Amino acid sequence: MSGKREGAAPHMSAEEFRRLGHRVVDWVADYWARLESFPVRAAVAPGEVLSKLPAHPPEEGLDGEAGWEAVFRDLEDVVLPGITHWQSPSFFAYFPSNATGPSVLGELLSAGLGVQGMLWSTSPAATEMESRVLDWLAELMGLPASFRMASDTGGGVIQGTASEAALVAMVAARNRVRRTLGREAEWVAYTSTQTHSSVLKAALICGVAREVADSVHLRQIDTDAGYALRPDALERAVREDLAAGRQPFFVCASLGTTSSGAMDPVPAVVEALGRTGFTAAGGWVHVDAAWAGSALVCPEFRALGAGLEGVDSFAFNPHKWLLTHFDCNAFYTRDRRALLDALSVMPEYLRNAASASGQVVDYRDWQVPLGRRFRALKLWLVLRHYGAQGLRAYLREHVRQAELFAGWVEADARFELAVPRSLALVCFRLKPLPGEAPEATDARNRGLLDRLNASGKAFLTHTVLPGVDGAPARFVLRLAIGSVRTEERHVRAVWEQLGALA
Amino acid sequence: MSGKREGAAPHMSAEEFRRLGHRVVDWVADYWARLESFPVRAAVAPGEVLSKLPAHPPEEGLDGEAGWEAVFRDLEDVVLPGITHWQSPSFFAYFPSNATGPSVLGELLSAGLGVQGMLWSTSPAATEMESRVLDWLAELMGLPASFRMASDTGGGVIQGTASEAALVAMVAARNRVRRTLGREAEWVAYTSTQTHSSVLKAALICGVAREVADSVHLRQIDTDAGYALRPDALERAVREDLAAGRQPFFVCASLGTTSSGAMDPVPAVVEALGRTGFTAAGGWVHVDAAWAGSALVCPEFRALGAGLEGVDSFAFNPHKWLLTHFDCNAFYTRDRRALLDALSVMPEYLRNAASASGQVVDYRDWQVPLGRRFRALKLWLVLRHYGAQGLRAYLREHVRQAELFAGWVEADARFELAVPRSLALVCFRLKPLPGEAPEATDARNRGLLDRLNASGKAFLTHTVLPGVDGAPARFVLRLAIGSVRTEERHVRAVWEQLGALA
Repeated sequence: MSGKREGAAPHMSAEEFRRLGHRVVDWVADYWARLESFPVRAAVAPGEVLSKLPAHPPEEGLDGEAGWEAVFRDLEDVVLPGITHWQSPSFFAYFPSNATGPSVLGELLSAGLGVQGMLWSTSPAATEMESRVLDWLAELMGLPASFRMASDTGGGVIQGTASEAALVAMVAARNRVRRTLGREAEWVAYTSTQTHSSVLKAALICGVAREVADSVHLRQIDTDAGYALRPDALERAVREDLAAGRQPFFVCASLGTTSSGAMDPVPAVVEALGRTGFTAAGGWVHVDAAWAGSALVCPEFRALGAGLEGVDSFAFNPHKWLLTHFDCNAFYTRDRRALLDALSVMPEYLRNAASASGQVVDYRDWQVPLGRRFRALKLWLVLRHYGAQGLRAYLREHVRQAELFAGWVEADARFELAVPRSLALVCFRLKPLPGEAPEATDARNRGLLDRLNASGKAFLTHTVLPGVDGAPARFVLRLAIGSVRTEERHVRAVWEQLGALA
Repeated sequence: MSGKREGAAPHMSAEEFRRLGHRVVDWVADYWARLESFPVRAAVAPGEVLSKLPAHPPEEGLDGEAGWEAVFRDLEDVVLPGITHWQSPSFFAYFPSNATGPSVLGELLSAGLGVQGMLWSTSPAATEMESRVLDWLAELMGLPASFRMASDTGGGVIQGTASEAALVAMVAARNRVRRTLGREAEWVAYTSTQTHSSVLKAALICGVAREVADSVHLRQIDTDAGYALRPDALERAVREDLAAGRQPFFVCASLGTTSSGAMDPVPAVVEALGRTGFTAAGGWVHVDAAWAGSALVCPEFRALGAGLEGVDSFAFNPHKWLLTHFDCNAFYTRDRRALLDALSVMPEYLRNAASASGQVVDYRDWQVPLGRRFRALKLWLVLRHYGAQGLRAYLREHVRQAELFAGWVEADARFELAVPRSLALVCFRLKPLPGEAPEATDARNRGLLDRLNASGKAFLTHTVLPGVDGAPARFVLRLAIGSVRTEERHVRAVWEQLGALA
């Protein structure tokens, strides 16, 4: 690491790293302080950022620390204009994703340690801290004991995303049912029409669904008036498939759908499946609570987790609503053996005494990739820094803000709630005018959203909710509260803007 | 972000974040300076780290900045003893993974910005910088123009790992051949016996292989005396499968196998496949150059990339040997349409004007997960900081050190090279004694490796190379040079330790 020797790689010296590191920390702190000064959604045109980046790679490196002045300039001139500010207090789009001090410092430590936690032996601390903090989370959320590492048959692992969680569950499910039956089969997976697209994508990747429109192998079950999965419709579909010689193997229920925050009735789903032979064949129920799962940290929302003792896996994203930045999905299963059976491949060059002893967990066998970062650090620091009390206070404040907003919507004759508020998600729209065609109502709502987002003062996204009982589908605005810096005044401001633009 | 308000979440204030951030930067710099003081491989027993972490989550958070003193103590007392020091200059195991100043600062910026680059519109800078730096890399490595984003039909993307790269390629391949044939088929993928286990794992995940031992659907083709895939054996296998009514759809060739650094003959593989109808059916050739790919940055190693213009995808890990810390796999394809056809699912809540315009790249459709970090930042900073000259100097120094070590092995009557040195990987062992049984030679080598690793002075891993022409398999030590801080003195020291322990 000696720096500028002739013909040697110009590694950054320790002193340069310290000084530049402090500057980058300060840059981040300053960025967070400036967040309200930017348009929330990037206002650049396609190709605009690209055109500001040199077409060819640099032949020579930067001239030491002084050369980094150009980097800091480019962060301002090239990068920031092309950023959609997910950390803005007026970011209400999709589901927000939190970058907090403790989380960012955990990532910095993870990067600096630069370890690869693929096997227990390649850094025991990475594995054991992960097991422990996921048991902490399970306790905080009141998850079944069968999901904890301490159970010896289940446990938690950090996946990158809810997409990977669903894929891992689906692959484990197929393998388990295949072993139970002792044969290959024509596999069928079930979601609701409202389930996140990542589950369909997982079915495409694992080969169960053959195309996006493959409704034979990935059945999207009808929902009720509140957009929750109908257990009776699920049960009927499973029976139909069994009768047709196909093999049901996987069901994904959602707690907090992306479109409207609907909660599928997990206990009734499990019960319905138990009547069909799905469960006896080894069929797997996965619960995707990507956004809403964090709420279980608050006792008053704990009822949302009813029935989880009857499912095979449960996953949620601390990177959505638990103060931890992307990527961090907490995945729990009560059948860790099924993951190993489906995903463990042990080549000679990875063999080691600890793995052979059977006394350790090798998390590579719980996930799609082999390699893994030390992501437990950021979750460990978040849980320690905030404590259970801090997490609860944080979640409750967002729910309180959403309640306020929902109240304003209901009190304004021009607007209506599209569905009842779900935790910190409010789906609303401009009411139809007397005699207005549904397309016209949708167009007015789309226009309102476009004007609001174009203003740069806030960023919301939309969805389309299917019609119930013959009613037409509705274009709906979503206000998802979940940014670390969102205070009541930001929620009030976006409501006032909506009112002014309506 | 107002901090200690009664009942409010105790967010870190900007000033706290600055001060703690500076301390964490300093902690990392100090850690790097102390690397030689630690045993390279963690010396803890299973459960030891776990036992030092509280069994239950904290109810109360840390008492502000002062509370973080406990965190810094735990980093020393709980975390560091459980770390296998991948950044140690005497880490020669697996393939090393580099954490450098510019790379770590890029991660810190990415975490601080906290953006989600799933769609172009969710942060255009994240997508466009990624496209640009991957085009830079392609130019530096002399990759075919068809792999560059500028080609409009191909392009590069950052995947997390080589595992995910192989999975994405396999899923795109299956879908492309299915469309070409217009029907479902019994799919067969091909690797060599030496291909990385992640490709077999990808076949399990995507459902092509039904179990680890499924040699019908994942055929592991024989290698030659240098452990490179035999194109004639591949061609024969493909013809057999076609004759049996199965459908060959995917071949993975390796540049630099994990066991011994073998280079599969890509041009001959492509030519052999062209003779079989594999190519005409839409069959896909993926080249996994996870470790060795970085060497293409040096013109003197450019010949390793011969034949890449004939393959469908190529991937390597800057997080192995290009100064960028995990995770960062550079994946290139000449058929980006095939990725979109296989992986794109567009629910209403992700629809946006930019995507609808067709003028932008949405990288979510190029990968398994939906969400993605702004990983281009770290690659951008590494390429700028080092420049092409710095990258080349870095790679050449490791190759020079490996040449030295290989020379010492050859000059010592007790040792032998197991295969010729491959770039910066040296596979060697204690020679068989006259009349010694192969198992006894293996046992002496295993003992030597165990003693060396137990000393804590260096960390090497092993492999077993199959016997050629009836010879027995051999237990072999691998010295993989690739740590940022490895200097000639470290390589010399491990050689002297090996000599003393032999």
